[in-house]
Amino acid sequence: MAETADESFGGVTPDAARRLLLGAVDAFAERGFHATTTRDIAGRAGMSPAALYIHYRTKEELLYQISRVGHERSVVILQEAAAVEGGVADRLDFAVRTFVRWHAEHHTTARVVQYELSALEDGHYAEIVSMRRRTEEVLRGLLEDGVAAGEFTVSDVRGTAVAVLSLCIDVARWYRPGGPRTPEEIGALYAGLVLRMVGAPVPVAD
Amino acid sequence: MAETADESFGGVTPDAARRLLLGAVDAFAERGFHATTTRDIAGRAGMSPAALYIHYRTKEELLYQISRVGHERSVVILQEAAAVEGGVADRLDFAVRTFVRWHAEHHTTARVVQYELSALEDGHYAEIVSMRRRTEEVLRGLLEDGVAAGEFTVSDVRGTAVAVLSLCIDVARWYRPGGPRTPEEIGALYAGLVLRMVGAPVPVAD
Repeated sequence: MAETADESFGGVTPDAARRLLLGAVDAFAERGFHATTTRDIAGRAGMSPAALYIHYRTKEELLYQISRVGHERSVVILQEAAAVEGGVADRLDFAVRTFVRWHAEHHTTARVVQYELSALEDGHYAEIVSMRRRTEEVLRGLLEDGVAAGEFTVSDVRGTAVAVLSLCIDVARWYRPGGPRTPEEIGALYAGLVLRMVGAPVPVAD
Repeated sequence: MAETADESFGGVTPDAARRLLLGAVDAFAERGFHATTTRDIAGRAGMSPAALYIHYRTKEELLYQISRVGHERSVVILQEAAAVEGGVADRLDFAVRTFVRWHAEHHTTARVVQYELSALEDGHYAEIVSMRRRTEEVLRGLLEDGVAAGEFTVSDVRGTAVAVLSLCIDVARWYRPGGPRTPEEIGALYAGLVLRMVGAPVPVAD
């Protein structure tokens, strides 16, 4: 069965709380949120169900923490990449590479975060949706910068930003470790495709 | 709760078998495959669990039939669109529009088909994977035709075909009825983006 060693959860303490999150990611990925029991999650973390409740009140709280950490990481990754030195095409290139690589490398976590969103409680759902909006804003900002600089030609910035993010996120669905392309290679391919999508001048050596 | 009225299942007879498939789509979409019971599916179709077993031996057989019909429709849609009269750019444009519109309009079915693939039995899984390969081949064929005709510039045809299909399929994840764009509008936007991805000359009125 899957064994997630997702360093995104490295900051979660104590150790038992982190092990439970990793167990929950694997269980949700394998069986779905609704079919997973807290007993199953505790077992994967080598703990008793009673010990789980010391750290998380409900199964939903585990899903919420996974979604929160996953989205936080992905917003930070995109923000940092979008803020690197260089022209706007270089920044978009780097942002797409980094975001794609993250979704390939963390495909198990990313799938849980994307597929189980509707199982969150209303307040948690609203919080995650606002984090997703931040992600969209970062990408939209890059496209607007490129248009303002005369480097990109994009008629529908909002729709194109949604499409670019969707392309990157869906890597988590189809990516399989050991497939024909490494996460880096997919990132490089996608960065080139996205530069074309926004009408950026593309190097001749295509 | 969701009420799927997916005409993709229109050819399924008798009526009870079709109602059960529609009930299963809704149940799987809401709760996931593993957390859904045949009692729940039967109830949604207004039938008893015993009546369900007249038509489907197992819950997995329902998922298999949903996946088979869903993939068949999507292969046919793409093949027909790719075969219309016109230049290769027009054919790709039409194929993307049609494929995207289908994934928006049938987002509930498409999500089940995409997210629950791993719950299929080995033989069924292999059959569905070979249908997915046919879909990829149709799109790859279009890209190869465009490159051969000197209309597209694509260095990695296989990788680009995967990216284009992924972009279209992921519409089913994020699309919400009543959102800012209709399925037709998303199809038109995406067709333009894909023509750029393959380096096709794009009309100036961008």
